[in-house]
Amino acid sequence: MIPEGFSFAGIACGIAKKKRKRDLGIIFSDVPARTTAVFTTNKVKAAPVLLSKKNIKNGLIQAIVVNSGNANACTGRQGLQDSQETAGLAAAGLGIKQGNVVVASTGVIGVPLPMEKVRKGIQEVISEKCLGPTLQHLSAFSQAIMTTDTRPKVVSLQERFDGKTVTITGIAKGSGMIHPQMATMLAFIITDAAVGQDFLCVSLKRSVEKSFHMLTVDGDMSTNDMVVLMANGKAENTLIRNGRNSQIFQRHLDMVCIKLAKMIARDGEGASKFVQICVRGCRTFSAAKQAAMAIAKSSLVKTALYGNDPNWGRIIAAVGYSGIEINPETIDIVLEARGTQIPVCVRGKDPGFDETKAQHIMRHDEIIIAVNLHQGRAEATVFTCDLTHQYISINASYRT
Amino acid sequence: MIPEGFSFAGIACGIAKKKRKRDLGIIFSDVPARTTAVFTTNKVKAAPVLLSKKNIKNGLIQAIVVNSGNANACTGRQGLQDSQETAGLAAAGLGIKQGNVVVASTGVIGVPLPMEKVRKGIQEVISEKCLGPTLQHLSAFSQAIMTTDTRPKVVSLQERFDGKTVTITGIAKGSGMIHPQMATMLAFIITDAAVGQDFLCVSLKRSVEKSFHMLTVDGDMSTNDMVVLMANGKAENTLIRNGRNSQIFQRHLDMVCIKLAKMIARDGEGASKFVQICVRGCRTFSAAKQAAMAIAKSSLVKTALYGNDPNWGRIIAAVGYSGIEINPETIDIVLEARGTQIPVCVRGKDPGFDETKAQHIMRHDEIIIAVNLHQGRAEATVFTCDLTHQYISINASYRT
Repeated sequence: MIPEGFSFAGIACGIAKKKRKRDLGIIFSDVPARTTAVFTTNKVKAAPVLLSKKNIKNGLIQAIVVNSGNANACTGRQGLQDSQETAGLAAAGLGIKQGNVVVASTGVIGVPLPMEKVRKGIQEVISEKCLGPTLQHLSAFSQAIMTTDTRPKVVSLQERFDGKTVTITGIAKGSGMIHPQMATMLAFIITDAAVGQDFLCVSLKRSVEKSFHMLTVDGDMSTNDMVVLMANGKAENTLIRNGRNSQIFQRHLDMVCIKLAKMIARDGEGASKFVQICVRGCRTFSAAKQAAMAIAKSSLVKTALYGNDPNWGRIIAAVGYSGIEINPETIDIVLEARGTQIPVCVRGKDPGFDETKAQHIMRHDEIIIAVNLHQGRAEATVFTCDLTHQYISINASYRT
Repeated sequence: MIPEGFSFAGIACGIAKKKRKRDLGIIFSDVPARTTAVFTTNKVKAAPVLLSKKNIKNGLIQAIVVNSGNANACTGRQGLQDSQETAGLAAAGLGIKQGNVVVASTGVIGVPLPMEKVRKGIQEVISEKCLGPTLQHLSAFSQAIMTTDTRPKVVSLQERFDGKTVTITGIAKGSGMIHPQMATMLAFIITDAAVGQDFLCVSLKRSVEKSFHMLTVDGDMSTNDMVVLMANGKAENTLIRNGRNSQIFQRHLDMVCIKLAKMIARDGEGASKFVQICVRGCRTFSAAKQAAMAIAKSSLVKTALYGNDPNWGRIIAAVGYSGIEINPETIDIVLEARGTQIPVCVRGKDPGFDETKAQHIMRHDEIIIAVNLHQGRAEATVFTCDLTHQYISINASYRT
């Protein structure tokens, strides 16, 4: 399932450390697509973020060029020129407007882009030999945007709108330097749906709130993150802008974004476990999210998860310092895996749980930590992973 | 150098996991001492914190009883009764008021105190056989409060006040679950100085701001932390309450607290490096501290430190998401060890530094990361350590 009117390519042009690793990719739409995006809130913004923010303002984008292996961040005026040249070369080769190109980069910070390689690469990646609309082409693109990811991340959904089939496909990368209140990684979502510009912007913001902003791997925020949503209208459905169709579109966009966010947490650097932190019984969503994030960011909770240790004391301590109002004596904590649950803390105390059973639950590779504060009806779920020896190994030697 | 009129003991009574590890300690002052304290801001407070907060209100304390191996946190009403009984037994045995006892616990959360062992332990620890005023007694106490610490932490200073010798001694424990905006660990500072109660409170708050609140190991805040300052007046100096003597006393108290804070960072769980993050050129101290803390808390910066990788991109990215206003193009970053410096980022960009020389600096076990934002004159230094495989090993298996 691939949206109509999009083609893809991904090649190796020598930017990445590992030879033969694909490191330059492109998404191309036959026609200019209505486009919206969410960018990093880091005050240190990479050159491609600055350029793409500008280009996306006119609301129409026809191509996205992405390189991995180099973030083109903290590279000064030269970095901006390099991003502009990248967009210009792609536009010229594809016969489209330079202002209709989004450029994204991911990788090491502070090293100038090797433009010789990029120039050659662009010529190759937009050639007929490489660019195409099949699953193989999409797969090549999804590999080209990976850095420390261990697997590509692609999600597709289809739905009928007024008799027309609409497809939404999302492709993401992200493994370390993952933290919300910014887009947290690269994600490109493309659809052949015809969607009104205003609703397109609103719908992406809503979906990002429920997905990528509920995700933390290591608490670090990148300089390069963006989520881009392109809708080229090739499905020829009635324009989606409000009413029931917009609700259905929102639901599907939510699903694509949430699935991608979960894939990113599951593939967190060095992760051995995918963990959902669900905090219930709060007065507000933002309080629930704040408590869930405190748990998800705690190095002590994350190492206990790695060690299969049902150490609920670290969980309740994180809730205690999260900054929200709590009464320790009404807090319940349940550990859950594959439908099996065990309460490890009831009203702020150990209920005398079965340690062996709890450790058995902790040994699963998908775990839910459910915390109930019994203050209200709001809840929030944050996606994260454990903190392992492998995370240290990956990041102690990332650059050298 | 030990203040007059204090005695100490530390014994093994079987609370800690490892047999023979000292796990119960006491500090006793011949006379009630003017006392002040700073406690954890975690909303989940351990029973000994609740009890000690109450007892310290009257301003006079004569004994501090500390156990390691069990935090007596999240233990409900029973926990509070156990702390009270501990204070009561010590008071009865020592012939002092029960309200003049501070109780502190550190260790696993959520497990009831083994009171049989504590009862026997108290009898032993206050016996003439154990309690005494020498360095050996002090050393036994400093060991009894250790958990994952690899070494005891004791600092002593002496100064003459109006012809009288005054001694200040600080004893601390702390290795993991270390983060500021709360006391961050256990520290007991005792002095034979005569100090006015009002100035005593003010001086401790000031010193804590400059020391323990500038310290982060893993960003987790404990439920049990406290810093206690006892002044028993045995030096018979003129009461310190204001003027030049109070400034001198403040300077010495600062030095004791800062030395203890550095010792804690240096002995951070699994740490291979002691790291000072100095952010200069800010508009305010709080902005400088915020940026320095963001760097010090970054898992990516901490793993790069472990890997001897001069990855300044992660440092500038942390400044970027710290939340303070910045201009990336005025940021300088210098790495420093043993007096050798290398600028790795000048005005937001790589100045083309010598990678080999930078890696050589990174290989030292004491490193300074100096960041200059060139916005103003305020600066802040935060104490931290690297994030290593050993941290993961310690915390994945802490409880089980």
